[in-house]
Amino acid sequence: MRNIRLTLEYEGTKYAGWQVQKTVPTVQGMVIDAVRKITDTPDVQVTGASRTDAGVHAWGQVANFHTASAIPLEGIQRGLNSLLPRDIVVKEAAEAATEFCSRRSSIGKIYVYKILNRPWPSALLRRWTWHVPKPLDIDAMRKASEHLIGEKDFSSFHAVDTDAEHSVREVTAIAIERKEEDVVEVEVRGTAFLRHMIRIMAGTLVNVGTGKLSPSEIPSILERKDRTAAPLTAPAQGLILMKVVY
Amino acid sequence: MRNIRLTLEYEGTKYAGWQVQKTVPTVQGMVIDAVRKITDTPDVQVTGASRTDAGVHAWGQVANFHTASAIPLEGIQRGLNSLLPRDIVVKEAAEAATEFCSRRSSIGKIYVYKILNRPWPSALLRRWTWHVPKPLDIDAMRKASEHLIGEKDFSSFHAVDTDAEHSVREVTAIAIERKEEDVVEVEVRGTAFLRHMIRIMAGTLVNVGTGKLSPSEIPSILERKDRTAAPLTAPAQGLILMKVVY
Repeated sequence: MRNIRLTLEYEGTKYAGWQVQKTVPTVQGMVIDAVRKITDTPDVQVTGASRTDAGVHAWGQVANFHTASAIPLEGIQRGLNSLLPRDIVVKEAAEAATEFCSRRSSIGKIYVYKILNRPWPSALLRRWTWHVPKPLDIDAMRKASEHLIGEKDFSSFHAVDTDAEHSVREVTAIAIERKEEDVVEVEVRGTAFLRHMIRIMAGTLVNVGTGKLSPSEIPSILERKDRTAAPLTAPAQGLILMKVVY
Repeated sequence: MRNIRLTLEYEGTKYAGWQVQKTVPTVQGMVIDAVRKITDTPDVQVTGASRTDAGVHAWGQVANFHTASAIPLEGIQRGLNSLLPRDIVVKEAAEAATEFCSRRSSIGKIYVYKILNRPWPSALLRRWTWHVPKPLDIDAMRKASEHLIGEKDFSSFHAVDTDAEHSVREVTAIAIERKEEDVVEVEVRGTAFLRHMIRIMAGTLVNVGTGKLSPSEIPSILERKDRTAAPLTAPAQGLILMKVVY
């Protein structure tokens, strides 16, 4: 059996997230359908590294599937891209070792959260930014972000409806930069993340940026280990899964 | 009467171009409707600097209108943005001199044509790039572009269905760069442009980049002064009006 690793780019706007569901379109569902057609294997499963939420985008999601099909890699990529809708693209197809699992083999992930920070909205960036009209204090956000780095219990940054066994995760780096066209990018690197964790972090950092919270309040928010301690979840459309690290 | 100058950003995907038409949605039509509502002047006209084609986008279109309304500038901007659909945004509203005309006062325009140059498409960039899978020779494209700079008769780069009086235009600069994510940007600056001129230039430069034409053939294409001499018009969605210069 071959183990095929796919790198995927998608615009999440129209999908109920990565994970397959019976009644709504999902990215995983579209990819599974396409993989089944080109490999002619009706029961093939496709595993993804990250279960991105509804509306979240990806530049570099990684998925894998096992197949006995002999189709060359280029044929897999072309075939999938011809079957997939235009908002899901296979950027790469590669042979992986038998034991490779896109989810369990991952040692880290890089996400970017994009905030449009100006009084008026953007026509061209609206699908992948969160519009925050109030000016953000980037220095304060950076100070706050330092408290979020390290191996910590992120219970306060954790969606309630979740099945994770525990809430300890490691954030290795957060970089916050003001880029062109008034876009503030929050890049978060870590080994793994809880459901909504980056969106709650982005919401909390925006509360610091607008002055609702001070950077020194972050440690006590973490210590409370309570979802209501960090109430603002940034909307899905600003979040992009940039890269999965192996 | 006040003369209000608007800077507009829009995603052209859903519109039949800038210029108002009776039966199809246009950017100018949407802006006129919104301006009439907020100024409470049913006959107000809105002039635009560039009559962008169907599907062409803008970061910095400029328009202006005359009104007796006393609404402050911030109210004009906010009011228009609250009435306009999300794919049209007023980035700025400013008072202009009585004689200012967004179209006639313009002394130059900057456009960017974006080409996605890799074998596979892009989910996130698909709305504002032209996907050219074959590798492009950027050096050859740059050499070819030098022949297009200056005051020239651009009849060969001119849509047939046009009402321009003559075909002499001045291109002041063309810059071609390979950017992140395999996007080749062709930036064209000039005093004014003919209908489809930049899209025909982009198509011709792509024909040079893929080896169908050599850079040395550009002068003879110009000399023929015939639309069929440069047959490839690049699709509208790759073109963005970046800036109007005054």
